[in-house]
Amino acid sequence: MDQGAAAREILPEATSPQTAAPPAGDPLLPVTLGELQELQASFAKDRDWDQFHSPRNLLLALVGEVGELSELFQWRGEVPRGLPGWTPPEREHLGEELADVLLYLVRLADVCGVDLGRAALRKLEKNAQKYPVDACRGSSQKYTAYQEAEAEGSKS
Amino acid sequence: MDQGAAAREILPEATSPQTAAPPAGDPLLPVTLGELQELQASFAKDRDWDQFHSPRNLLLALVGEVGELSELFQWRGEVPRGLPGWTPPEREHLGEELADVLLYLVRLADVCGVDLGRAALRKLEKNAQKYPVDACRGSSQKYTAYQEAEAEGSKS
Amino acid sequence: MDQGAAAREILPEATSPQTAAPPAGDPLLPVTLGELQELQASFAKDRDWDQFHSPRNLLLALVGEVGELSELFQWRGEVPRGLPGWTPPEREHLGEELADVLLYLVRLADVCGVDLGRAALRKLEKNAQKYPVDACRGSSQKYTAYQEAEAEGSKS
Amino acid sequence: MDQGAAAREILPEATSPQTAAPPAGDPLLPVTLGELQELQASFAKDRDWDQFHSPRNLLLALVGEVGELSELFQWRGEVPRGLPGWTPPEREHLGEELADVLLYLVRLADVCGVDLGRAALRKLEKNAQKYPVDACRGSSQKYTAYQEAEAEGSKS
Repeated sequence: MDQGAAAREILPEATSPQTAAPPAGDPLLPVTLGELQELQASFAKDRDWDQFHSPRNLLLALVGEVGELSELFQWRGEVPRGLPGWTPPEREHLGEELADVLLYLVRLADVCGVDLGRAALRKLEKNAQKYPVDACRGSSQKYTAYQEAEAEGSKS
Repeated sequence: MDQGAAAREILPEATSPQTAAPPAGDPLLPVTLGELQELQASFAKDRDWDQFHSPRNLLLALVGEVGELSELFQWRGEVPRGLPGWTPPEREHLGEELADVLLYLVRLADVCGVDLGRAALRKLEKNAQKYPVDACRGSSQKYTAYQEAEAEGSKS
Repeated sequence: MDQGAAAREILPEATSPQTAAPPAGDPLLPVTLGELQELQASFAKDRDWDQFHSPRNLLLALVGEVGELSELFQWRGEVPRGLPGWTPPEREHLGEELADVLLYLVRLADVCGVDLGRAALRKLEKNAQKYPVDACRGSSQKYTAYQEAEAEGSKS
Repeated sequence: MDQGAAAREILPEATSPQTAAPPAGDPLLPVTLGELQELQASFAKDRDWDQFHSPRNLLLALVGEVGELSELFQWRGEVPRGLPGWTPPEREHLGEELADVLLYLVRLADVCGVDLGRAALRKLEKNAQKYPVDACRGSSQKYTAYQEAEAEGSKS
């Protein structure tokens, strides 16, 4: 089965074709990273594009998509959470760029033999040990500590 | 419940603590994007870090992680699929950097109100319509066509 | 002559070794892109590192440095021009990260056979034709027009 | 004087308008970072665009341009130095993307109060001290040492 059809099967019938944002309060669609990985693998295989999907090719494609994502935020100054004032087409565009980054990331993990979902859970667990709640919360040093912790973390 | 504990509950008991790569042939852990989103939201809330998680802060953090991911590939020349010759610590490090990119991406989508899994499925469906199998496969113009299609796609 | 010595010769005697920021009002040091290119070429040659300086290796190294640059800005919210409140070590660190991006960019242009200074002047001239002063200045549509123009420009 | 005219004045009469690559063997055009900074400052001032040129806006614009640069290299596999097989329009496009990255980098340094040329010379000098020629050249451990040194350097 083509992966386009497969994607349509996972998408619920009621999904609005116009937007990546469900009605407020709607639960997220339960999409696993493995499903995305399989859909992309069959997409590439069907088109004989595996030959282009080397790790560094995919990494540079990912960087390209991160660039497009950044362009959506570049001239706006600070943007509040929830993106007040963004039009539906702007939100739709944002959803597409976020999706592009995700799809290349999933594909890159696949060709590198990394179980991305497992890696994410393990990183969350590691982060929880590194930043204990009691040490981080309510401290006046929070911002600085967070920055330093992040800087430190970036070296590990 | 702390999200570290929650992450441990989702991780199967048998998971090796040393590696993001499951034994070859093992199925991927079925992790949904929504689970990751919830774990991260509670992580930030528990530490009173929501104040730092504005869209552009998260986007720049994502760019930082993409930079760290790139550093793993920067002096290696072309890297074959499956990463032959990479040591277990190098693979582990790669899993962590891929995870970091994913986690900031999921968090960014969350604070922007985008259902990332839904957006990814919709993008896959759109890509399938844009690159029909018959038009793309087996053509001697494949590489060029793919590049042009991608370039075109980057403008949409 | 080693390029470290060469760099010291170009740097004026009076340069403070502690900071990339000259005393306010001081003129910029007149450094050409060609000088940087030559210094880096000899740096690589002296160490037999040319073998690592392929275009895609350098590009990924550049992406890594852009990531480090982004980390300096990631948790700060909006940062005003002139960086009020940044400490001298933070400013020094910023100067180093900006320099790292520049140095890899200059090296990448070199191994690709592009005269970066010439390319920059030509791009400035092209931009001046694309965004005429009269059409851009003082319009209430400025912000939107600028965004659209940029979006358009990103496709060219 | 408009900065477009200024750019034209710096560009020599004989410059081919079609290419960023001078005839082989031609010396580089002697363009200083300060000249580029001044041309861009007047470009922004003439259009009343200084209001958009905050540090983080410019940084995200830089990330966007790095993404466009990456797209030129993304599906090619390893690319040899000198870019054999690239067409003149492809080389021209590359020159433009390299220029875009440079121009935003120069502008970002300007609004942050960093003398970019001075910072680059100081970084080169620092690198020369960090990687002494004798310790780096001709060692069979070169590749590994370089990687480790770079990884270490990325933390400083």
